[in-house]
Amino acid sequence: MTQLRGVGIGQGVAQGPVARMMPPLAPPAEDATALTLAEETSRAREAMDAVARDLEARGERAGGTARDVLEAQAMMAEDPALAEEVDARLAAGATAEWAVFDAFASFRDQLAALGGYLGERAADLDDVAQRIIARLRGVAAPGVPDPGHPFVLVADDLAPADTALLDLEKVLALVTLQGGPTSHTAILAREKAIVAVVGATTAGELRDGETVIVDAAAGTITTDPTADELAAARRRADEREDAASAPLTLGALADGTPIPLLANLGSPDAAQAVALGAEGVGLFRTEFLFLGQQTAPTITQQRAAYEKLLGAFPGKKVVVRVLDAGADKPLAFLNDAHEENPALGLRGLRALRASEDILREQLTALAEADAATRAAGGGADLWVMAPMVSTVSETEYFVSIAREYGIRTAGVMVEVPSSALLADRILAHADFASIGTNDLTQYTLAADRLLGSVAAFQDPWHPAVLRLVREVGDAGRRTGKPVGICGEAAADPLLAVVLVGLGATSLSMAPTALADVRASLAATTLDDARRAAEAALTAEDAASARHAAESAATR
Amino acid sequence: MTQLRGVGIGQGVAQGPVARMMPPLAPPAEDATALTLAEETSRAREAMDAVARDLEARGERAGGTARDVLEAQAMMAEDPALAEEVDARLAAGATAEWAVFDAFASFRDQLAALGGYLGERAADLDDVAQRIIARLRGVAAPGVPDPGHPFVLVADDLAPADTALLDLEKVLALVTLQGGPTSHTAILAREKAIVAVVGATTAGELRDGETVIVDAAAGTITTDPTADELAAARRRADEREDAASAPLTLGALADGTPIPLLANLGSPDAAQAVALGAEGVGLFRTEFLFLGQQTAPTITQQRAAYEKLLGAFPGKKVVVRVLDAGADKPLAFLNDAHEENPALGLRGLRALRASEDILREQLTALAEADAATRAAGGGADLWVMAPMVSTVSETEYFVSIAREYGIRTAGVMVEVPSSALLADRILAHADFASIGTNDLTQYTLAADRLLGSVAAFQDPWHPAVLRLVREVGDAGRRTGKPVGICGEAAADPLLAVVLVGLGATSLSMAPTALADVRASLAATTLDDARRAAEAALTAEDAASARHAAESAATR
Repeated sequence: MTQLRGVGIGQGVAQGPVARMMPPLAPPAEDATALTLAEETSRAREAMDAVARDLEARGERAGGTARDVLEAQAMMAEDPALAEEVDARLAAGATAEWAVFDAFASFRDQLAALGGYLGERAADLDDVAQRIIARLRGVAAPGVPDPGHPFVLVADDLAPADTALLDLEKVLALVTLQGGPTSHTAILAREKAIVAVVGATTAGELRDGETVIVDAAAGTITTDPTADELAAARRRADEREDAASAPLTLGALADGTPIPLLANLGSPDAAQAVALGAEGVGLFRTEFLFLGQQTAPTITQQRAAYEKLLGAFPGKKVVVRVLDAGADKPLAFLNDAHEENPALGLRGLRALRASEDILREQLTALAEADAATRAAGGGADLWVMAPMVSTVSETEYFVSIAREYGIRTAGVMVEVPSSALLADRILAHADFASIGTNDLTQYTLAADRLLGSVAAFQDPWHPAVLRLVREVGDAGRRTGKPVGICGEAAADPLLAVVLVGLGATSLSMAPTALADVRASLAATTLDDARRAAEAALTAEDAASARHAAESAATR
Repeated sequence: MTQLRGVGIGQGVAQGPVARMMPPLAPPAEDATALTLAEETSRAREAMDAVARDLEARGERAGGTARDVLEAQAMMAEDPALAEEVDARLAAGATAEWAVFDAFASFRDQLAALGGYLGERAADLDDVAQRIIARLRGVAAPGVPDPGHPFVLVADDLAPADTALLDLEKVLALVTLQGGPTSHTAILAREKAIVAVVGATTAGELRDGETVIVDAAAGTITTDPTADELAAARRRADEREDAASAPLTLGALADGTPIPLLANLGSPDAAQAVALGAEGVGLFRTEFLFLGQQTAPTITQQRAAYEKLLGAFPGKKVVVRVLDAGADKPLAFLNDAHEENPALGLRGLRALRASEDILREQLTALAEADAATRAAGGGADLWVMAPMVSTVSETEYFVSIAREYGIRTAGVMVEVPSSALLADRILAHADFASIGTNDLTQYTLAADRLLGSVAAFQDPWHPAVLRLVREVGDAGRRTGKPVGICGEAAADPLLAVVLVGLGATSLSMAPTALADVRASLAATTLDDARRAAEAALTAEDAASARHAAESAATR
C-alpha cells in the first residue's frame, strides 16, 4: 500500500473503486475524413442520439432541478437545426468529431453573444458537444462520472455546477487535488456528511476502478490496500455508523463530567440539529438576516427569525452572536470604506460600535423575541455574544449595552490573540467566553484562512493556538465562568477531547459532527483529556501535537 | 490650563506661540465693484507686487530646492500676460479679488490641460492666486505660516509639499488634527527629531499667537499654561538637551547591566547612527535594494551595499534582516498573486521560501561582503535574521539554509503571536530572536497598523503584547539566547525600561531616539525595570499599563 495525503474533512472513512472526473477533451483536428460521407453521417447521428438518450436516462434518475437541466441538454443533442449544421460540415468533407465540434461552437458563440439567461446556456451546449465527441472517440465523457455503481470520486476540484449533477447516493467519498478546508467541496462534504479529503495534490495518479481507502480523520488515501487494511477501515466505518445511530445521550465524559454538545446554526432552521441531538445552540450566526440587503432588516423582521429559533429549543441554551460583518462579509450600510486588510479592519464589534443603532436594534429584537417566547411558555435560555472583541473596554461596552436591553447572559467571542491573553480580565466583565478557533488560528499564525498559499498555517492543532485556548480555559476556571468552543476545531473528536482538557466547558459544531464527538467524549475521562492536552501543548507543531494527544489519550 | 490630547511622536516637550496653517480661502463673489477702475487696478497691482516680493524674500531665506520653487512662484505673481488678463476683468467692472481669481483660474486650466510637468505647476498658480487674494482681503495667506518668529505649527495635516516649504528651524513643535503615528507628519517629526503630537482632533480651537506646551511623551497640548507649568516644561526640555549632549556612553542600567543600544537603518548610510552613539545595527532593512525594481538586484549590487554597511561598524554587531516583501511592500518578481489580506498573506520568509533563489542570492552576497570586510581588517559581527517567522519548522529552515552559506549567527524576528508563544521551541533552533513590536501588536490585536479607523488598537503598551514579549524574554533567559527589540516600542524611554524588565537584552531604534533611551536606562536598575514590567503586565489596557509602569519605576 501507498498513502497519498491531503486535508481530511470530518472523521469518516470509506473504501471503494475510483471514478475520475475527466478534464475537458482536446479539440479535434480539422483533418479531412478518410471515411465516406455516409459512414461519417452515421457515426455522428449515432453519437448524438446515444448522448440524448443517456442524458434523458440520467435526468430520470436524478429528478428535481437536475432533471430539467439534463432534459434540456438532451434536446440540444437532437436539435434539428444543429443536426443540419453538422450535416453541412460533413458534406464539406469534415470528420464527425470536427463537424460536431465546429457546429456546436458556432451555436454556442451566437448564444453567448445574446447574454443573460440564454448566454448562460452556452456552457450546457459545450457540455453536450464534449459528450458527443467523447462517445465518437470511445473515451469517458468529461465532467462528473457515472460508472453505474458506488464510487470514490476523484476530481481536480468540484464546482457547484458539477455537484448539482452528482448522484450523491453513489458517492462513497470525495477526493480533490485542489481546494482547502473552506472550498466548495469541503462545504458540501460537511453539509452532507460525505467522507472527503481535499487538496490531495498527488491524487492525479489514481486510476479508474482501483480500490482505495479514504480516511478523512487521517487526511489520507490508501492505494493497494491489504485485506487487513480494508477490514480495519470497514470496522471503523461500522463503529461510526453505530455511534451515529447510538442513543442521543447528553454530551459527557466517561467519568460523567457533562460537556454540553451544541449546534452551530446559520439560520433558524433547527430540525437537523434537534434530530441529531444538539442540546442547544452554541453559535447562532445572524448574518443571514443582513447579507445581500441594502439596509439593515427591521426589528420586526429580525424578531420573527429569533422567535422561530428560540421556539425550537424550549428550556435549552441558545447563544446568539450579534452581527459579524466586515472582512469576508462586507455590508455597505455598515462599513463602506476600502480596507487594505479587511480581516484586520473595522469588523465585528468594531463595526457595530461605529454604527451603534444597528447593534441596538438587534438587541431590541432579541429581547422582544425572548420575552415573547417566554410569555408563550416556550422560551429558551438566551445568551448573546459579540464577535471580534479584542480589549477589556470593548467587553465592558458590549456587556453594559446588552444589559440595557435586559439581556441576562452577555459574553464575548475570543478570536483575537489579545482577548485570549487577557481572558482573566475579560471574564471579570463578561458572563461567558466562546472561542472561535478559525479566526483565532488565523490571527495567531498571521495567515489568511481563505488564502490557499498559506493554508498550511491554518491548523487549530498548532500548539500556539492550544496555549491561547488554555489561557481562556484557566481564566474560566478561576472566574467560574463558562468557556465554549464554536470553531471548526470542536468538530474534530480528538481535538474536542484536548479542548475539554484545556478547560472548555461546552462544544458547538456543525450538527453532522455531533455523533462522532459524543462518542469520543464518552470514551474519555477528564484525566485522560487533561493528559492529552498537556501532551499536545508541549509539541512544537500541529502534526506532532495531534500525534502526542493521540498517544496520551489512548495510553 | 486645559489639555488637548493626541498621539505623541517621540519624547520631546516644547512651548511657544501657535501659528496655524490656514485652510484654502473661499472663492470671491463675482460682484461688480463699488470702487473706481483706477482704485481696483491700484489694489490689484499692489497685492501682486507685494506677494512677488514676499515670495522672493522667502526663497532667499529658504535656499536650496525651495528657493527655486518660490522664485518661480514670484515670477507668476508678476507675469505680464497674467496682469493683462487681470486688467481686462477690471476694465469690465470686476473687483480686484474676482479679477485675480478668475484670471489665474483661466491660466491654471490651460496649464492643467497640458499635463505633464507644466500641468503639475497648476497647483503653484493656485497657491499664488490664494496669496494675492488673502492680501487683498487683509487675512493670513493659506498654507504654511511664516510669522517671522519661532512657532508651534498647528495644521489639519501636513502634505509633503507643505513641509518642503516649511522653515524647520522656526518650528518649535508640530500639532496636527488628523494623522496617526505613521502619517507623513509623524515620519518627518521622527526623522528631524521635532516635538510632535498628531491626531489631536480638537486642536482646531487653538488660536494664532496663544502660548501652548506640546508634550510628545504625554501626547498632550496644554493651553493657558501656568508659570510653573512653563518652567517645568522648560526644565524637561533642558534635561533632554543635556541627555542629547551627554557623553555617548554604552547603553547600561544604573546597576551596570549592559543593554546595547543599536540603530534601525534602511540604507547603508550610517553616519547619523554612528554620530549619535549607536553601538551597532539592530535592524538593517534590505528592502531598499529591491523596491521599485523589476527583477531582484544582482549579488554584486547587494554585496556593495552590505560591504558599505559592515565597514561602518568595525567590530560591532550588525543585524541584517533578509528581504521582507509582501503586505505593504509588494514586489512583482516575488509574489504577484492578488491577496485579500496581504498582511496575512505570502510575505516575509513565506515569500522567500516560495522563491528560494532570491534568499540564496541574498545570503551569498551577505557572506561575501562579510568575508571581504574581514579580509580588509574592518569586519563587523554579522547577524542575519528572517522576517515573519511563524513556526518552528520555518526557523529550522532559515537557520539551516543560512548555515549553508557560513552565516555564524542566524536568528528570527518574532512578530507573529505564534512565534512568541513558541519562543522556547524556536530559540532551541535559532541563535537569537528580535521582536518586531509593530507587527506583533498588529497581529495580537488583529488591527491593521496602517488603517486609521483601528489605529487606537495599535499600542505596544497593550498588556497582551507585553505578555507575549515576556514569553520571548523568558525563553531567552532559559536558553541563554539574546532577545532584541527592533520595533518602535524600543524608542519609548519608559517602554524601553519595561521591555528590559521583560527580558530584552538589547534595544534597536531610530538613531534620534538613542539619547532619550540611554538616559532613561541609566536612571533605572534591573530591579526597577522588572517591577515596572510586572506592574504593566497586570494592567487591563495600554493606558493603565503605561501609568502602572510609570508609578512602579519611580517608586
